Amino acid sequence: MTTDSTLAATADAKLAISGDNTKLTKEQQLALINVNLAEILNPEIIEKVIDEGRAPRIYWGTATTGRPHCGYLVPAIKIAQLLAAGCHVIVLLADIHAVLDNLKSTVELVGYRAKYYERTITALLKAVGVPTDKLEFVLGSSYQKSPDYIMDVYKLATLVSEHDAKKAGAEVVKQSDNAPLSGLLYPILQVLDEEYLKVDAQFGGVDQRKLFAAAKDWLPRLGYKERAHIMNPMVPGLQGSKMSSSDPDSKIDLLDAPDVVTKKIRKAEAAPKVTEGNGLISFIEYVLLPAAQLLGKEGFRVDRSRDNLEPLVYTDIAKIKADYESDVLTPQLVKPAISAAINELLAPIQAAFQASPEWQEIATKAYPPEIKVKKEKKVKNKGTRYPGAAAKLEDAKDEATPEPATENA
Amino acid sequence: MTTDSTLAATADAKLAISGDNTKLTKEQQLALINVNLAEILNPEIIEKVIDEGRAPRIYWGTATTGRPHCGYLVPAIKIAQLLAAGCHVIVLLADIHAVLDNLKSTVELVGYRAKYYERTITALLKAVGVPTDKLEFVLGSSYQKSPDYIMDVYKLATLVSEHDAKKAGAEVVKQSDNAPLSGLLYPILQVLDEEYLKVDAQFGGVDQRKLFAAAKDWLPRLGYKERAHIMNPMVPGLQGSKMSSSDPDSKIDLLDAPDVVTKKIRKAEAAPKVTEGNGLISFIEYVLLPAAQLLGKEGFRVDRSRDNLEPLVYTDIAKIKADYESDVLTPQLVKPAISAAINELLAPIQAAFQASPEWQEIATKAYPPEIKVKKEKKVKNKGTRYPGAAAKLEDAKDEATPEPATENA
Repeated sequence: MTTDSTLAATADAKLAISGDNTKLTKEQQLALINVNLAEILNPEIIEKVIDEGRAPRIYWGTATTGRPHCGYLVPAIKIAQLLAAGCHVIVLLADIHAVLDNLKSTVELVGYRAKYYERTITALLKAVGVPTDKLEFVLGSSYQKSPDYIMDVYKLATLVSEHDAKKAGAEVVKQSDNAPLSGLLYPILQVLDEEYLKVDAQFGGVDQRKLFAAAKDWLPRLGYKERAHIMNPMVPGLQGSKMSSSDPDSKIDLLDAPDVVTKKIRKAEAAPKVTEGNGLISFIEYVLLPAAQLLGKEGFRVDRSRDNLEPLVYTDIAKIKADYESDVLTPQLVKPAISAAINELLAPIQAAFQASPEWQEIATKAYPPEIKVKKEKKVKNKGTRYPGAAAKLEDAKDEATPEPATENA
Repeated sequence: MTTDSTLAATADAKLAISGDNTKLTKEQQLALINVNLAEILNPEIIEKVIDEGRAPRIYWGTATTGRPHCGYLVPAIKIAQLLAAGCHVIVLLADIHAVLDNLKSTVELVGYRAKYYERTITALLKAVGVPTDKLEFVLGSSYQKSPDYIMDVYKLATLVSEHDAKKAGAEVVKQSDNAPLSGLLYPILQVLDEEYLKVDAQFGGVDQRKLFAAAKDWLPRLGYKERAHIMNPMVPGLQGSKMSSSDPDSKIDLLDAPDVVTKKIRKAEAAPKVTEGNGLISFIEYVLLPAAQLLGKEGFRVDRSRDNLEPLVYTDIAKIKADYESDVLTPQLVKPAISAAINELLAPIQAAFQASPEWQEIATKAYPPEIKVKKEKKVKNKGTRYPGAAAKLEDAKDEATPEPATENA
């Protein structure tokens, strides 16, 4: 897929989004599903569902651990595009995984976190103007302890070799002989989720590829059907990879005040002229530009009034990259533009939070001040199911290698 | 423990068994628990329960797969001794494991097999004259799919490394990279069974030692208490290790007619003068002699009327071994004596079977003629939880190495 054609399709589809999105043509739907993806496995499965006149059911899983931050905007934008395309999106709030991730956290705490995730993700999707009537949240605990599910866990563990389970989790589970056994069990669970959530496809980062390939292979062994898999590329962290462990607040929280966002972006890494691995440019590509398009805005706007110049307005990432590489678009110009765009995106989320005493109470219970969530550092590379994992791990002083590419789905 | 002292204690305890077995002294109880064991871990746990005036709860697990045969008499005699000692014995009928062992078998079929096991094991214990009021059967499926149990499976899998899970199962689970993942999961389940069955001790063959050591280590990680572990030695197969794959009926079924038993024992391997690894001598040691003692019989009787000699009556395995090694007790003499003793032991079981149309119906449904159970050959060394596994595997032509020592618990 080319970015140009899919972006054009997005723009074409725009008018239909806010109204009756069943009016989209199949091609428009597929363009929205495919935009910015790194890869899709078995797209024909999704196409067939559309041909049958059904809304494709697509699931994305996230462990309800730390506070959702700006890194979550990358998968959220894809979810927004899926909703805009008329898909039924199921967000699996993996609360059991969250409990297992930190056995000290209580089931009650994780329950509040799941509620916090649900509120935040919903607000975030509303903020980019997509309909949320086909957005569904499912708690992992609502079925992952059921007799049928667990019998299938036992059966699949019998049908899958240690070797294959290890291979499936190779990019998202720490690989060592001393790794916890749960790392081999997680692929089994994630594969079964597809069947128990009755989806047509699973969405995740491209780091999930081996796991998705395993799902294709394993589900038919239990007599279940194979699903499609759609994958976002690995996107570098918004603020760069060299996060300081002495700056625990370096991640941009979705509830950060505008001046805090501005300050954090100002401190972000951004080598002039280099777009490769540049977290700021990637954030424009995978979040700000698609968000502007979903909202029907003119594009990504860079103010130049300080230099008495007309603003630059971009609708095309290729042009942004070209201008950045030629230093027309300098870090000094792009950073305030990004801060402004983020603040604009977060404003309705924060307004909704301020207007909801219930949500505020959930937030306090989910993240009481005394609990230092960012010190959870058990598993090194947690993959895109834990969009916040990379930064948290960089905070852990005994972990030597930062892994910026694993941050976002 | 010495065989002499424990046998003496058994004899002392005899009178008490059929009546009120709470009259046994603590020493008599412990002697019965310890007789013929290869090893016991944390005996003080059992002693403490006795000191508190409670009946020690001890569990033994068996997968409900093939028809129970004479190999089951080895663990059954220990269970009989435990019952005679006033213990509460829980037989875990591992029906989920049986389903996983052969995914082609239906839950219904395995259900009938569990019923068949329950009937057979009960009849067998009654046949050696022990009280069965403290004998309890529990289906694995009654709790191994419950939310609490599965949450503990997930948690323990998080607290145990791949390496430790593999080590725990080293002697009972096939070790290879292509081994099914379930092999790493089984130790987790078996360890948790101790907690969910609320036992004071687990009983098994000494092949379970690493698993039992893991249980001691792992349960406290979940805040559960450590249990005692009692282990039978590995006993060579009754009919010797070189079973012919062309003779699928070579195992002695508990319902085999007397002439069939005689014929099978006649064909059993038995090198003259060699007691080491001799399945027949071991069967006398671990089944026939203890059974005679539990029943208050004079001992193990060897008829010599053919030679116009008085019968030999043994109460001591050391004397039997000495006589066998000096060829006073020849294979020709010992084989008919063993057949007679087995037939005597099986007679009440078979009478109970004949008297119960219900049991007969269960047998037909559990082992319908068209299903060849003996072709289940997936896991090579299944350990003492599958007392029939060794012989079945020898039937499997693609398995080269017979493993006689793994036959009985």
